Amino acid sequence: MTQPNLLPRSRTISRFHSVRSATAELIQGLSAEDMVIQSMPDVSPTKWHLAHTTWFFETFVLEPFASNHRPYDPAFGYLFNSYYELVGRRHPRPQRGLLSRPPLEDVLEYRRVVDEATMRLVEDAPESIWPDLRTRIILGLHHEQQHQELLLMDVKHVLSSNPTKPAYRETPEPSSAQPKPLEWFRFEGGVWSFGHEGEGFCFDNELPRHERMVADVELADRLVTNAEFSAFIRDGGYRRPELWLSDGWAWVQEAGIEAPLYWGPEEDGSVSEYTLGGPVPLDPSSPVVHVSFYEADAYARWAGARLPTEFEWERAARHAPVEGNLLESRRIHPRPVPGGEGVRQLFGDVWELTQSPYMAYPGFRPLQGALGEYNGKFMANQFVLRGGSCATPASHIRATYRNFFYPHQRWAFQGFRLARDP
Amino acid sequence: MTQPNLLPRSRTISRFHSVRSATAELIQGLSAEDMVIQSMPDVSPTKWHLAHTTWFFETFVLEPFASNHRPYDPAFGYLFNSYYELVGRRHPRPQRGLLSRPPLEDVLEYRRVVDEATMRLVEDAPESIWPDLRTRIILGLHHEQQHQELLLMDVKHVLSSNPTKPAYRETPEPSSAQPKPLEWFRFEGGVWSFGHEGEGFCFDNELPRHERMVADVELADRLVTNAEFSAFIRDGGYRRPELWLSDGWAWVQEAGIEAPLYWGPEEDGSVSEYTLGGPVPLDPSSPVVHVSFYEADAYARWAGARLPTEFEWERAARHAPVEGNLLESRRIHPRPVPGGEGVRQLFGDVWELTQSPYMAYPGFRPLQGALGEYNGKFMANQFVLRGGSCATPASHIRATYRNFFYPHQRWAFQGFRLARDP
Amino acid sequence: MTQPNLLPRSRTISRFHSVRSATAELIQGLSAEDMVIQSMPDVSPTKWHLAHTTWFFETFVLEPFASNHRPYDPAFGYLFNSYYELVGRRHPRPQRGLLSRPPLEDVLEYRRVVDEATMRLVEDAPESIWPDLRTRIILGLHHEQQHQELLLMDVKHVLSSNPTKPAYRETPEPSSAQPKPLEWFRFEGGVWSFGHEGEGFCFDNELPRHERMVADVELADRLVTNAEFSAFIRDGGYRRPELWLSDGWAWVQEAGIEAPLYWGPEEDGSVSEYTLGGPVPLDPSSPVVHVSFYEADAYARWAGARLPTEFEWERAARHAPVEGNLLESRRIHPRPVPGGEGVRQLFGDVWELTQSPYMAYPGFRPLQGALGEYNGKFMANQFVLRGGSCATPASHIRATYRNFFYPHQRWAFQGFRLARDP
Amino acid sequence: MTQPNLLPRSRTISRFHSVRSATAELIQGLSAEDMVIQSMPDVSPTKWHLAHTTWFFETFVLEPFASNHRPYDPAFGYLFNSYYELVGRRHPRPQRGLLSRPPLEDVLEYRRVVDEATMRLVEDAPESIWPDLRTRIILGLHHEQQHQELLLMDVKHVLSSNPTKPAYRETPEPSSAQPKPLEWFRFEGGVWSFGHEGEGFCFDNELPRHERMVADVELADRLVTNAEFSAFIRDGGYRRPELWLSDGWAWVQEAGIEAPLYWGPEEDGSVSEYTLGGPVPLDPSSPVVHVSFYEADAYARWAGARLPTEFEWERAARHAPVEGNLLESRRIHPRPVPGGEGVRQLFGDVWELTQSPYMAYPGFRPLQGALGEYNGKFMANQFVLRGGSCATPASHIRATYRNFFYPHQRWAFQGFRLARDP
Repeated sequence: MTQPNLLPRSRTISRFHSVRSATAELIQGLSAEDMVIQSMPDVSPTKWHLAHTTWFFETFVLEPFASNHRPYDPAFGYLFNSYYELVGRRHPRPQRGLLSRPPLEDVLEYRRVVDEATMRLVEDAPESIWPDLRTRIILGLHHEQQHQELLLMDVKHVLSSNPTKPAYRETPEPSSAQPKPLEWFRFEGGVWSFGHEGEGFCFDNELPRHERMVADVELADRLVTNAEFSAFIRDGGYRRPELWLSDGWAWVQEAGIEAPLYWGPEEDGSVSEYTLGGPVPLDPSSPVVHVSFYEADAYARWAGARLPTEFEWERAARHAPVEGNLLESRRIHPRPVPGGEGVRQLFGDVWELTQSPYMAYPGFRPLQGALGEYNGKFMANQFVLRGGSCATPASHIRATYRNFFYPHQRWAFQGFRLARDP
Repeated sequence: MTQPNLLPRSRTISRFHSVRSATAELIQGLSAEDMVIQSMPDVSPTKWHLAHTTWFFETFVLEPFASNHRPYDPAFGYLFNSYYELVGRRHPRPQRGLLSRPPLEDVLEYRRVVDEATMRLVEDAPESIWPDLRTRIILGLHHEQQHQELLLMDVKHVLSSNPTKPAYRETPEPSSAQPKPLEWFRFEGGVWSFGHEGEGFCFDNELPRHERMVADVELADRLVTNAEFSAFIRDGGYRRPELWLSDGWAWVQEAGIEAPLYWGPEEDGSVSEYTLGGPVPLDPSSPVVHVSFYEADAYARWAGARLPTEFEWERAARHAPVEGNLLESRRIHPRPVPGGEGVRQLFGDVWELTQSPYMAYPGFRPLQGALGEYNGKFMANQFVLRGGSCATPASHIRATYRNFFYPHQRWAFQGFRLARDP
Repeated sequence: MTQPNLLPRSRTISRFHSVRSATAELIQGLSAEDMVIQSMPDVSPTKWHLAHTTWFFETFVLEPFASNHRPYDPAFGYLFNSYYELVGRRHPRPQRGLLSRPPLEDVLEYRRVVDEATMRLVEDAPESIWPDLRTRIILGLHHEQQHQELLLMDVKHVLSSNPTKPAYRETPEPSSAQPKPLEWFRFEGGVWSFGHEGEGFCFDNELPRHERMVADVELADRLVTNAEFSAFIRDGGYRRPELWLSDGWAWVQEAGIEAPLYWGPEEDGSVSEYTLGGPVPLDPSSPVVHVSFYEADAYARWAGARLPTEFEWERAARHAPVEGNLLESRRIHPRPVPGGEGVRQLFGDVWELTQSPYMAYPGFRPLQGALGEYNGKFMANQFVLRGGSCATPASHIRATYRNFFYPHQRWAFQGFRLARDP
Repeated sequence: MTQPNLLPRSRTISRFHSVRSATAELIQGLSAEDMVIQSMPDVSPTKWHLAHTTWFFETFVLEPFASNHRPYDPAFGYLFNSYYELVGRRHPRPQRGLLSRPPLEDVLEYRRVVDEATMRLVEDAPESIWPDLRTRIILGLHHEQQHQELLLMDVKHVLSSNPTKPAYRETPEPSSAQPKPLEWFRFEGGVWSFGHEGEGFCFDNELPRHERMVADVELADRLVTNAEFSAFIRDGGYRRPELWLSDGWAWVQEAGIEAPLYWGPEEDGSVSEYTLGGPVPLDPSSPVVHVSFYEADAYARWAGARLPTEFEWERAARHAPVEGNLLESRRIHPRPVPGGEGVRQLFGDVWELTQSPYMAYPGFRPLQGALGEYNGKFMANQFVLRGGSCATPASHIRATYRNFFYPHQRWAFQGFRLARDP
């Protein structure tokens, strides 16, 4: 998909250092104790993320490409494999929170050693293997960036599970912009091309680029806000079955859902929201975040609208600049839509829930070998999200990027935008 | 969608009697005891089906259209509502097997009384309401036909749960045709129309008719057979994670799945299959039946193919005659592909699993009121099946018909056909 | 334990007919549909009771004693074994409700055939085996009487699970006696003998007779009433953790317990209770029934008293006549304490919960072979109840009889009497 | 129960320092990461033990006795209350593993501050409150010693849950004594006194001292060994239902139990056992440890013996010196019976499972107020263990001490001794 051999190795080295050190920066302010906890099966401990992303380089870069490589620690292959069945047996996911050993310092040393070995490999590799090696390293760096966001999602869940509700770090004062009335923008239907093209990196699930017919659609110019979602709640939204998909209604009943994850109970007419900066009063103009597909779908039905398909979203985003409230803004929380015209907030703030089940594109081919498990085997029961969030690195996101979660999950930084048939 | 007022009422009356008595015929040979049992939450007791289909006419035909209607029994509204939240509270689904009362004779009397009142209503209704009334009755009859198939699926599960494996009724001797080598037929891609058109009945989920782009595809000329599926098993199919979707693999592990539902354990090199005629030796040439989406998907990956989309299937079936091994053949079990040329077994034998998630067509509008819950609220987490089965009435099926089940379910008469990219 | 050979065989035959026909009498008024349902894992269908008690005679009387015996139906050994591991594999208890086949008429025929064969055996057996044969038949009849009570407990649960709350049969009008103030009677402590003695039948768990030291105690002259238990509820009894054992409090929270089983919700200041005669207004003077050990224990703590030990109860009952509101009164519901003096209601009305864990007496020896599983293997985690109930046959109960249930169970006709330290 | 005012305060101060610093010593060698993990709901993190024992002094000593006391941190009352309902709401037990905050250093500071305040209180308290104050402090120290053992049990479970099986600390080389043939010693029955007497400390559940009749009994001179238990396993002990209580058999089946907790799988004919010193080869002469009541009971039945009652044990132990392999030996693992005559190993090595359900002694009175929840509310569904273990401080154990666990639990250092009827 790329022509990597035209690029100097130094650029790869530089990107490698940049991404790996960005991960290390994220643990500033966390104690070793914070980094060992798994607050639910979906969550992984911070320390596990640090080790697993390193295991990825060891397993998929050093092992196949570095002829003299010897495993750093044979136990690590078992402990830090996430879900690659073809690589071998692995520690059960729900038990990642039992790993006080190896201690944090060993994991950091593991990172250091694998980093060094990888950089040595980049410098010494014969030209014949460089293109493949480079491709694999770039994949490892995108994998690492995915885990930067997962790490933040998981830290948020871990700290929020503590009754004392500690902050992860100081974040910028939340803004207090006035919510703007929502506007609709129309997109013409027809046969259009979707999926990745060009030389840049993409995951296998963004390919092949293919044509697809979409209908005319109107998209909201911004994300749904806390104020709007609060109106849905006040109108009995969580108690009216006619607004919900059958599975969603069962979930609401069973799990006792009454508000987005991280919203506190209403006290004296006001609601607080747990953020990575600690609890803050709910900002009415900010996008609602940490709602499930079911909640977004019910809200849309209540509002007389619907969720967009992933293709309606991609068409709107195709020519938009990749900028917004991404990880680099260091807010780690969505912010109100900025002023301006047209469809905004496409990138950053929150992953946008779509009504599209996560399925293969026509002619999809997974990667060869164990890396074929990366994306393809999850193509059932999940829904596509688009656009990245306030926890997504800017260099990681693009218009064709497909994220996916189960319809009841909501610990990702995810929200939604409305669509409607013209 | 139809122009019902052009049709004489006598035709409706005749169809009503025909469908309702077909249901009654299905319980021949069952005891009252058989009809009260619920062998798993997905299953409903036979008696419940008899009552629920009658409740449907009482609630959606007599109540709104018959001005002098009084409820047959106020308790029945609670007991026999299936899932219509807007109609009111209802008896919990997993507790349908607790209803020894009302006894079978009361339920049969209920059917008689509602049948009479409905026919009286048809005869007496003023012309002004006749078109709407007729539309509603036709819906009720299609609903009844759906339950004819559900009733048979459920009876099969109930009787198979009995260690003595009793037969439901005598069925024709299974055939012993020689399996034919599979052939592939190519269909050209492009923009085509999908969904129901014309005056005949259809469900809301088959609309609106719309255009959609499909790619070139090759379809197998027949269904996958027991012999072929056995080869998958012998090749370790159920023990090789690389063949499975992640959720499918988790299901196989947890539920201890090793073969299609109703296959007995191998004894002396041969396997028996429970059918509604009792246990029989597995017929190698017959289509495999009672496999889940996950199993079909894994088989297809093993075979280097894939499942068709519901649109690929619909295109192939659009001009095929609606005939095959349907309920009227009284086999209630799939049979080997008949001789002939081209893509066969499209209708009947088994519902064909597709790779299409069950979602709304662009511009989908559910029915008004409680009947809007009929189809729309299930549009998440399920997959589409096409073509009807050996338990589907012939007058109930058509090329645009969309059935749907969760990917782990398999008590329906369901199997699959392979597709591949040219 | 007995000298059976001194008794004529005709007396055994007469008792056999009397007990077996009493079981048959209990199903009058039930439909075959009623008899197939299992409303919770603890409950067995009526038809299963009819078959299992017959299986007991076939397995433990005909098989070992009738030389020419051939199994009535080989499948029945699997279907109707309750819990005898040594007899062989068996149908799982929670799936007893799946057995529509064999139909009721076959089970009744099974009873007839086994009855005949048993009576023929009694008539023809050589004198040498008669004592052992008689002992085994008497055990079978006591087993049958246990199941008469279980059958009624289970029918009550099955019918109460039906939203229409049907009656099992007409029962005598509930009385409306005035509740009498409770009086206490003192019993001296010391070393006393406990357990069965003499020639009559007893179960292995009532032996050996042994000495035991008991302290001075005061026992209430009657059972705790609905009025008294209602006062406990009104005083917040179910919401005050300090009144409960830790496990009891966990059970109350998890299972959402707020009142005895079968009490309806309070409506307009009055509460109804489901009885085998259908729902009736709660009678304040009748003993509270269908409370668990945990509830009885919490009530006693609230009342400044405690539950008696099984030995305190046995001492009080040792010389009391075995009479009261037992099965033969055909009320199948407890009634208010009759007039009189002294400790009353010892037998009948409700099984009396004691604070005694169900354990072996010193020197306990279970029966030989599979029948050793009858009582001994349940000696952990259960509590002893004494005195029989309104569903216990009079000829089945005695002062040394030990019934036992888990501390959370309450579908037996069970209540309690208070004790206190002087 | 004691006459504390006769003792100088300095002795209390000295004992306080001794016990509290013994706790602190136990965490040597553990990292902060180790101390935050909860490997199952029964287990508490080490850090939680450190805080909870301190909370106990703050709540039950400083709050009521120190007039100027102000809560160290209001959140701690919620976080570190174990199960005292009357003290207020508390953090759910299964979520103790989510508490990365407060960090370890804050908890250690909490200990320091409460220690200082307690010592200041001892020095300054007026004579009038000293006796009560002293009684409360002594209770707090015994509570602390209980948690020293719990802490070790829990650390063992936490570290064993790590696939790398790390050691807690170096422990003395396991001995390799020759197993001695078991001998039996007879104890005469009769009426004897049981329960605590005299001035020393005891828990409320050891009172009142009372008379009780016990039968003649023979007790084994030593604990059951690994070699003996291995013979039970080789003889199919875990696969023979006739050896098990019904609930025990269900547990074995459901939980897939095949050996004591911490035994590794057999490899090349030898078995390893995880100890706090890491995995070691199973020592045949050492007492079997980490077996449940169910396993001990099944073994005893297999061996033609039974478990002793707690009273049979107490009689044997009443005059034995309190010495043996206790915490102070620093082995933290049982060792083979030492040479000598008579009934040995009564104290230390392993808690001895008895057949006695944990119930109140006649006339039992729990402590007043919230401390009444200490022991009494657990008197159902548990069994008594006697004698202390290799993780019990010597100054904490005595012949009348009653420990208790559920019959399926086995993470305590628990084993058993056989008894039999003469």
